[in-house]
Amino acid sequence: MRLDLDIWHMTNHNGIFSLNDILKAESRFRTTFINSLGGFKSLALIGTRNKKGVTNLAVFNSVVHLGASPPLIGFIVRPDSVERHTLSNILETGELTINHVQEDFFERAHQTSARYPDDVSEFDAVGLTEEFRFGMYAPFVKESSVKIGAAFRQRIDIAENGTVMIVVKIKYVCVPENTIQPDGYVDLHKAGTITCSGIDSYHRTEPIARLTYAKADRMPDIIKS
Amino acid sequence: MRLDLDIWHMTNHNGIFSLNDILKAESRFRTTFINSLGGFKSLALIGTRNKKGVTNLAVFNSVVHLGASPPLIGFIVRPDSVERHTLSNILETGELTINHVQEDFFERAHQTSARYPDDVSEFDAVGLTEEFRFGMYAPFVKESSVKIGAAFRQRIDIAENGTVMIVVKIKYVCVPENTIQPDGYVDLHKAGTITCSGIDSYHRTEPIARLTYAKADRMPDIIKS
Repeated sequence: MRLDLDIWHMTNHNGIFSLNDILKAESRFRTTFINSLGGFKSLALIGTRNKKGVTNLAVFNSVVHLGASPPLIGFIVRPDSVERHTLSNILETGELTINHVQEDFFERAHQTSARYPDDVSEFDAVGLTEEFRFGMYAPFVKESSVKIGAAFRQRIDIAENGTVMIVVKIKYVCVPENTIQPDGYVDLHKAGTITCSGIDSYHRTEPIARLTYAKADRMPDIIKS
Repeated sequence: MRLDLDIWHMTNHNGIFSLNDILKAESRFRTTFINSLGGFKSLALIGTRNKKGVTNLAVFNSVVHLGASPPLIGFIVRPDSVERHTLSNILETGELTINHVQEDFFERAHQTSARYPDDVSEFDAVGLTEEFRFGMYAPFVKESSVKIGAAFRQRIDIAENGTVMIVVKIKYVCVPENTIQPDGYVDLHKAGTITCSGIDSYHRTEPIARLTYAKADRMPDIIKS
């Protein structure tokens, strides 16, 4: 690690880095650094099951809202990583679940990113519980307070680096009833959902405020809940 | 709002919703609800400038890490919204900046989502400061502690709902020097970066832990910083 730091200190002026500096850095260092830059990220366990019946569970931090009508979510898969099972199971069965992570099982969520053999379910390996609901073939995570059952819609190959964006449509939603506010807002802090940054850092949240819809003629107000 | 809540109570059994329930809900309610489900999200101000020289600043919560080699970031744009200026400026000039949001200016960041006339810069309208660096044409946000200068690489149209994913390559990075750890991790909590959920809720973070790289034969350890 010393060496990497030295490399950076040679080119680093007050926290400023050019593309050249980034490309010169050692590979693991660069991965950790670049992964940190996008800000805090969604943290979700994606549950799938292959045709043979073996379940799979993998942690993702790239879930992104695409639209509400129809309700669509996207996420990024790296086909050359442990995430390839998630991808092949979704393409095989058309189904998946998206399950939020709480602080009481974040180590087990992280552990799903280890390379287990094909016939081992991460549910068993890390100690999380499969839950089958709504006639879906893909498993939910019983321990998650917020969970979504979804259907595969579209695969988008990102030519720039060989990653894949998967677009899915929400079919079922389970949230704790006391987290839903009258205007449709689901209070994820109250639900215990946590967030992450970089490749391995986990964070709880603290509400600052909700703000009213922005209008050009005045600054927003705080929404009282 | 009463009516919306009634609609949901008719079909809502202990916080469980089907696609049918979601499609029956009133439009703004559905938007708020579905936007909440993806978890906590990145929060960034994207700075651009059109050929005439008018700068634009817009808040996004869909920034996602795509890869480290080369360093790529993606984000989702809705061409039928105020975000259309961001899209057209990027396509016109090939440049943009991505700037993190801190608690001391989150109301101003939110306010960039109001509909201002084409010739008004959101920097002036909301009271944030343009900063030109590295010979880039696109403006950075002076107030942001973490900022990225980037170049347009690819536009991906998402057929399912007419949204667009923009893929960009990182050219410059500015982070507070004291937030960079020896392994490349940038401590965003220390940098003051905040996160958001739903369409209008802002949250600060509190570190739980960083975990070691997951190996199949043992559970992860906490990384001491």
